[in-house]
Amino acid sequence: MAKPQKTAITPTRAENYPDWYQQVIKGADMAENSPVRGCMVIKPWGYAIWERIQGALDRRFKATGHENAYFPLLIPLRFIEKEAAHVEGFAKEMAVVTHHRLVEKDGRLVPDAPLEEPLIIRPTSETIIGEAFSNWIRSYRDLPVLINQWANVMRWEMRPRLFLRTSEFLWQEGHTAHADEADARAETMRMLEVYREVAEDVLAMPVICGEKPEFERFPGAVNTYCIEAMMQDGKALQAGTSHYLGQNFARAANIRFQTEAGDWAHCHTTSWGVSTRLIGALIMTHADDDGLRLPPALAPAQVIVLPILRSEEDKAAVMPFAEELARAIGSQIFNGEPIRVKLDTRDYPAPEKRWEWVRKGAPVILEVGPRDIENRTAAMARRDRMGEKKAILPDSEIVMRMGGYLAEIQGTLLAEARTFAKARTRTDIRDRQSFEAFFAGEAEDSFSSDLGFVRAPWCGESSTEAMLKALKVTIRCLPFDQPARLGPCVLTGKPATAEAIFAKAY
Amino acid sequence: MAKPQKTAITPTRAENYPDWYQQVIKGADMAENSPVRGCMVIKPWGYAIWERIQGALDRRFKATGHENAYFPLLIPLRFIEKEAAHVEGFAKEMAVVTHHRLVEKDGRLVPDAPLEEPLIIRPTSETIIGEAFSNWIRSYRDLPVLINQWANVMRWEMRPRLFLRTSEFLWQEGHTAHADEADARAETMRMLEVYREVAEDVLAMPVICGEKPEFERFPGAVNTYCIEAMMQDGKALQAGTSHYLGQNFARAANIRFQTEAGDWAHCHTTSWGVSTRLIGALIMTHADDDGLRLPPALAPAQVIVLPILRSEEDKAAVMPFAEELARAIGSQIFNGEPIRVKLDTRDYPAPEKRWEWVRKGAPVILEVGPRDIENRTAAMARRDRMGEKKAILPDSEIVMRMGGYLAEIQGTLLAEARTFAKARTRTDIRDRQSFEAFFAGEAEDSFSSDLGFVRAPWCGESSTEAMLKALKVTIRCLPFDQPARLGPCVLTGKPATAEAIFAKAY
Repeated sequence: MAKPQKTAITPTRAENYPDWYQQVIKGADMAENSPVRGCMVIKPWGYAIWERIQGALDRRFKATGHENAYFPLLIPLRFIEKEAAHVEGFAKEMAVVTHHRLVEKDGRLVPDAPLEEPLIIRPTSETIIGEAFSNWIRSYRDLPVLINQWANVMRWEMRPRLFLRTSEFLWQEGHTAHADEADARAETMRMLEVYREVAEDVLAMPVICGEKPEFERFPGAVNTYCIEAMMQDGKALQAGTSHYLGQNFARAANIRFQTEAGDWAHCHTTSWGVSTRLIGALIMTHADDDGLRLPPALAPAQVIVLPILRSEEDKAAVMPFAEELARAIGSQIFNGEPIRVKLDTRDYPAPEKRWEWVRKGAPVILEVGPRDIENRTAAMARRDRMGEKKAILPDSEIVMRMGGYLAEIQGTLLAEARTFAKARTRTDIRDRQSFEAFFAGEAEDSFSSDLGFVRAPWCGESSTEAMLKALKVTIRCLPFDQPARLGPCVLTGKPATAEAIFAKAY
Repeated sequence: MAKPQKTAITPTRAENYPDWYQQVIKGADMAENSPVRGCMVIKPWGYAIWERIQGALDRRFKATGHENAYFPLLIPLRFIEKEAAHVEGFAKEMAVVTHHRLVEKDGRLVPDAPLEEPLIIRPTSETIIGEAFSNWIRSYRDLPVLINQWANVMRWEMRPRLFLRTSEFLWQEGHTAHADEADARAETMRMLEVYREVAEDVLAMPVICGEKPEFERFPGAVNTYCIEAMMQDGKALQAGTSHYLGQNFARAANIRFQTEAGDWAHCHTTSWGVSTRLIGALIMTHADDDGLRLPPALAPAQVIVLPILRSEEDKAAVMPFAEELARAIGSQIFNGEPIRVKLDTRDYPAPEKRWEWVRKGAPVILEVGPRDIENRTAAMARRDRMGEKKAILPDSEIVMRMGGYLAEIQGTLLAEARTFAKARTRTDIRDRQSFEAFFAGEAEDSFSSDLGFVRAPWCGESSTEAMLKALKVTIRCLPFDQPARLGPCVLTGKPATAEAIFAKAY
């Protein structure tokens, strides 16, 4: 915990964006690499943020009629083979369990007792949940089946990056089965809206809602919808997806039901998921050169009370007031819950502790020193206004207005991110040459560049996929809000079918 | 969903206790075997119970200063080797990951890309958390470190049984590091008390708190404490353990800190855990021949409102009243939360639905039919009084008194289990012959037998381990509450050092 020179994080975003990202995580003590390549340790501050994301989602899942369940970690190879036969572009990097025992041999432990059939650590639970649904569902009266699972999954990663791309990650996967298309489509959109709401209202992260073009769809899906966010380097990050699977998966997994009329029909199914990747998105939306900035709705500690003690006498004078202040703030409400206040009494110098909370992104830090006792004041610093001088305020005002301050900070973070995304979204690029110049001219991973989104008409032809691939650009989505009229396709000049969001992406 | 003959569960406890256990789980739709041997699918009703257990524990963990974190699923073989070298009686049945890719070969998928070092799916996270602690902890100011993890773990099981013994199960594992022995010992006892409180106050499951004898200790622990519960077949089930590990694990994992005086010292550590096994204990404590009985504090749905409809006209008349009743009950409070009420409108015959809720253990079922509308009444059935006739009660009384009914049911279940455990605990067996007769005379897995606990003085000698093993009896614990004077050891006749609980066990 060394005092920073100019900024709390070295390097800054402008100096080296990817390294800045790693240092923000380290500085906020959120996660670290583990001795197992590609797997991370999520430390208490990072995990508390995940728990808040989980809580915000889980409440909404339950309010919309979903139930949680738990399916096995391991999946038989034959299930994966069945899926591989159905699905092109099947990812094969998975952890394979081949033995179920260790024995000692020459003082070492070696694998023993080979399995008859190898087992895969779930990269997703589509197949095993489909198998369960085919047994559970019998009648129209059993539908809809609305299941969610909170779980760890594993996809072997060669170039892992904390939260963004790790071999093991935590996520939720929703899997639902419906009697008809309309009901399944309504579900698909309902869950996308849940994701949008949590992204914008809780994470204060503006997102664009839309549909993926055909060549970006989840394999086997009829439609894939997504929320896309812009990171501070102008790249896109897919923050959540919701798929309408039609009857494709129901046919493959034999998920059938008897209709009210007595016939047998295949269900219409959906799936949808978000993961710990959201924490990466949160960092790259809000963090600055002093570290993380947390939207108050998500912050595990919203207000830090920091006693400034220079001697034992100070302690006797300051601590009762600091405790009283913390208690009073904790009895106030923000967002329908008591304000989460932390009195930091650890035996480290106050400036070190203050910078630690700055790096961790605590929305409000209150310092209470010997001189505050008589006037009943505290020095307030807001994480969204780091440049400003601390404000010396009376305790009564601090207590009464804290809910309001937190609401203001929540709003500021969302507004700032919206302004940034808007400024970095080009809507004036209308020909291929400008398009190529925009994306080709920029160095990757550069924070100070003008890289961002291009919103432009697109013809919908699959031939454009290769053009985009050559530029390392992707279509993020076709936004739901479309203009009344479209100009010609920015790539081919042909008549456009929709406006698309083009971007480089994580 | 067929209407039962005499009891909702076949066979009954008396007919075939182990089979009854499986049928209760099936009848309550809590879990099922999966296509992966030894791994279960936890279905929504079972998982909702687990979520309530998690919530009850997690609130108490946080209230006592613990933070959640997440550590990797996979553990390098060298970590396990290190542990194996330290720990005798090391269990070797684990899932071993040896490859990280699948490739197609002759139309099949086969494992490819062997790992340089095999990885183990965590059977527990002691070693990997110890490694993290050795990096995290530097100074006395960092202590105590109080970490909990909610996770899935895996221990290969040859004879799996739902909830009681599965290859994969869900649990929490607490791992803490302290500056001195007193602080670590206080932590060990504090967490045991958290377990006792949740077992008795939430699960309504009486437990005996005590210490394990040396030969039943967790390998490497200085002291192992436990809560032990009596199942309805008279066997014991260890429902939770809390270990004081001294400096043994800190030495093995090199967890050191600089003291206030500037010296370096090894931490004193603890660990403690409970698992989805608690659900097995819950079933075998409270279920009867009609299925599960849930203590209201734990029940995902505490009150079921069941409309009785024989025609479409009935529906128009009954549904508004049923909805109003459900809403009014849901605005009442039990245990500090709104009462969880479920209006079951599914299109199945009412008797089928009623028996389903009986099997699921819902504490209260209210039936509302056409004849109830005029008088504003409902027929109330309490799951703790299955023999009684349903009571026809006015809606106002039902609403106002529902919190009280639920509190009564919670109390009744705990009291019944206490009475059962007391009646089945023999305190009069004082010689080896009677002891052997008690345990040898009884068939295993027999519900109707008198099998139970023996509480008797014990000499503490390790030679008694073999005697007990021959009888398939174990010492469950040395209870904390000990008499002022002890008679001679029930096994050896030598002077006793403590009273022990002897039992057959799961």
